[in-house]
Amino acid sequence: MAPRAGRPRVVTLSTDVGSAYAAQMKGVLLHSLPPDRIVDLTHDLPAHGVREAAFVVRAMATPFPAGSVHLVVVDPGVGGGRAPLAAACADGSRLVGPDNGVLLPLAEALGGATFYRIDPRRVVRAGRVGTTFDGRDLFAPAAAQLARGVRPSSLGPTIVPVGQPLPHAVRRVGRADGEVVHIDRFGNLITNIPSDWVPRKPGPVTVRVGSRRGRRVPWATSYAEIGRGRLGALGSSFGTVEVAVGEGRAARRLQAEVGDEVALRWRGGRARATSTVNSDRPRRR
Amino acid sequence: MAPRAGRPRVVTLSTDVGSAYAAQMKGVLLHSLPPDRIVDLTHDLPAHGVREAAFVVRAMATPFPAGSVHLVVVDPGVGGGRAPLAAACADGSRLVGPDNGVLLPLAEALGGATFYRIDPRRVVRAGRVGTTFDGRDLFAPAAAQLARGVRPSSLGPTIVPVGQPLPHAVRRVGRADGEVVHIDRFGNLITNIPSDWVPRKPGPVTVRVGSRRGRRVPWATSYAEIGRGRLGALGSSFGTVEVAVGEGRAARRLQAEVGDEVALRWRGGRARATSTVNSDRPRRR
Amino acid sequence: MAPRAGRPRVVTLSTDVGSAYAAQMKGVLLHSLPPDRIVDLTHDLPAHGVREAAFVVRAMATPFPAGSVHLVVVDPGVGGGRAPLAAACADGSRLVGPDNGVLLPLAEALGGATFYRIDPRRVVRAGRVGTTFDGRDLFAPAAAQLARGVRPSSLGPTIVPVGQPLPHAVRRVGRADGEVVHIDRFGNLITNIPSDWVPRKPGPVTVRVGSRRGRRVPWATSYAEIGRGRLGALGSSFGTVEVAVGEGRAARRLQAEVGDEVALRWRGGRARATSTVNSDRPRRR
Repeated sequence: MAPRAGRPRVVTLSTDVGSAYAAQMKGVLLHSLPPDRIVDLTHDLPAHGVREAAFVVRAMATPFPAGSVHLVVVDPGVGGGRAPLAAACADGSRLVGPDNGVLLPLAEALGGATFYRIDPRRVVRAGRVGTTFDGRDLFAPAAAQLARGVRPSSLGPTIVPVGQPLPHAVRRVGRADGEVVHIDRFGNLITNIPSDWVPRKPGPVTVRVGSRRGRRVPWATSYAEIGRGRLGALGSSFGTVEVAVGEGRAARRLQAEVGDEVALRWRGGRARATSTVNSDRPRRR
Repeated sequence: MAPRAGRPRVVTLSTDVGSAYAAQMKGVLLHSLPPDRIVDLTHDLPAHGVREAAFVVRAMATPFPAGSVHLVVVDPGVGGGRAPLAAACADGSRLVGPDNGVLLPLAEALGGATFYRIDPRRVVRAGRVGTTFDGRDLFAPAAAQLARGVRPSSLGPTIVPVGQPLPHAVRRVGRADGEVVHIDRFGNLITNIPSDWVPRKPGPVTVRVGSRRGRRVPWATSYAEIGRGRLGALGSSFGTVEVAVGEGRAARRLQAEVGDEVALRWRGGRARATSTVNSDRPRRR
Repeated sequence: MAPRAGRPRVVTLSTDVGSAYAAQMKGVLLHSLPPDRIVDLTHDLPAHGVREAAFVVRAMATPFPAGSVHLVVVDPGVGGGRAPLAAACADGSRLVGPDNGVLLPLAEALGGATFYRIDPRRVVRAGRVGTTFDGRDLFAPAAAQLARGVRPSSLGPTIVPVGQPLPHAVRRVGRADGEVVHIDRFGNLITNIPSDWVPRKPGPVTVRVGSRRGRRVPWATSYAEIGRGRLGALGSSFGTVEVAVGEGRAARRLQAEVGDEVALRWRGGRARATSTVNSDRPRRR
């Protein structure tokens, strides 16, 4: 829904701080925004897990209407030297968060962005904030300003953000190598291997996770098809390959963690028009 | 609060997908609804626990104003053959979710409903969706349409929904037999035995859960009355009998699980006007 | 944002009941308030932990605009003799919750309050409610009335609330004694010792928690400064001293619990204008 003229933009909140700390951020936002401009995404992002959080945030925020302000607080370096960032995305969206890489995949998915280093004096009265919770003391006020129409460029000078991009998978003949980039609430292993690298109807595939031995598992089109308690691979809702156990937890079964390497091999199948190496990015609706 | 003329209906979200996946559903909804039309109920329903979820959803959604759209995603069969449903309830409310029984108790509590099998082509451009997350790809767009006034009947043909109803308790003289239908966040055992089957001031009652031996426990009118660390029985906020430990966890004490049989016996008490076998349904406010 | 003329006040929800029971409270609120007047703070307050919850609630709700209605349900005594409370705060805010002390620190932070014992007959039709979930049956309807402009004094007679205040720390020369009042989601130990009792740049400090031996740890200005896996002390976002492990869990490392005594000693540092014994109260923005 396009913002009505004069209405502030919607601010989405994605943090690892839990609902109690997040409540303080909402309190600050409500000083200058009406409640219906604030949308909780999650406050349970993996604590200190910047790369996994970056992957999840990209998936969560990409379906939102262009023009939203996405406030992301996964900030193990708070109070240290890392810069506070505001960003203007190509699609008109705004980003706010720490300069540790957590914003980069989302910025890329929204068409690229120009980043600015937030000058606290332009956001907070007296320019002085605490050192342990920039989410409340600095980022929330900055997001509120952006929601009310302030331009990111007026919050500080441009900056080249630091931080690692998400790891890209590598494609070979009949094979792809990637890694586990996220373990979801159901214990499913979400990889960074684009689903459309796998040919249609490939039959069984071989999956190797970390140093565990390779396993021949069915390629399924749904969880229901895998069968209760059995291991399988399928295209995830992130657009990448997922390893799952029917009504069970693949992470526990395979003792897998985020960052584990994943090798996927297939033999048969019909080739299909497949994507480039960058196809693991979500598409806008 | 009755919907203002021209305003979309409120959409409530009840899922087992966790807040991160639910965020993607909200992003989709926000393309056609303003943020104040979207109300999170919970995203922590028991994963794959369709019957327990159905019980909780009924209790959560029944207090909402008539005319709300209740979107429920507990969907272990996603991508399989189960139908996607939309429903028009007798009280004007709308339901959206998978055809696995999770909607049925709520539909019954709202006065009954007519169900329709959602045709993806009437909801999603090109009619093609992924196979692992209908909550985002199919149910959220369908709920948004219903919220904006589209009739459920225009989303697809009528269908007779499948799925087991909630188990009913059996009433005998001085005794009731039921089962644990929900374990709440405090470890309390919520049964399906209507509280008003128990006479007023029954004195101590005997509770047997699963194969554990029966225990004589006080019938209390509140948690406070049970006493810290002690086991007791009382009328739950669901309108059914609950087994609880004062400031403790009955589920742990009794090693109980959802589905365990519960036998409740009493000797004394004053008979009261009691309900029929169906009185375990919540009443509208 | 000041309430627009004629618009109901914002109602914040802070509970220990989990999102599923909280959903029922929201359903009740929605009968008389539009969705954009309802703001979830948290539903994961420590169950039955009234004092810790009181500390967290104060921190969460204080940043909200004056005039908000704060509904707090941590209510192990529900159905017993404890009174249901409504309060009018000096800053115009309203409070609703049980008379067990959970509202007192927030009331104090908002400039003090006059408390009223809610008469159920003035809130609920027929004046009869259940005995296990006043959050839904009594407090939510009361909060809705306050949000719509009803005066707290019209809900019942004045009452002097009971309940323990939060423990105060004791200040000595080169030393402060307090206790752990909250363990946050990251396992950080939040104490009640005001940060500004510690002189600027004190160098290493000695921290003793419970009966564990004292440890000499760095006084840090941020988590980043502590160093991964190391123990340190710093000023928390609550305005009090915090004991933390860099990217780790201090509660686990020190086997600490809420209520453990904390002794903090320092040698060096520059004295600074410090606060009175009451400075552990959060300040309004």
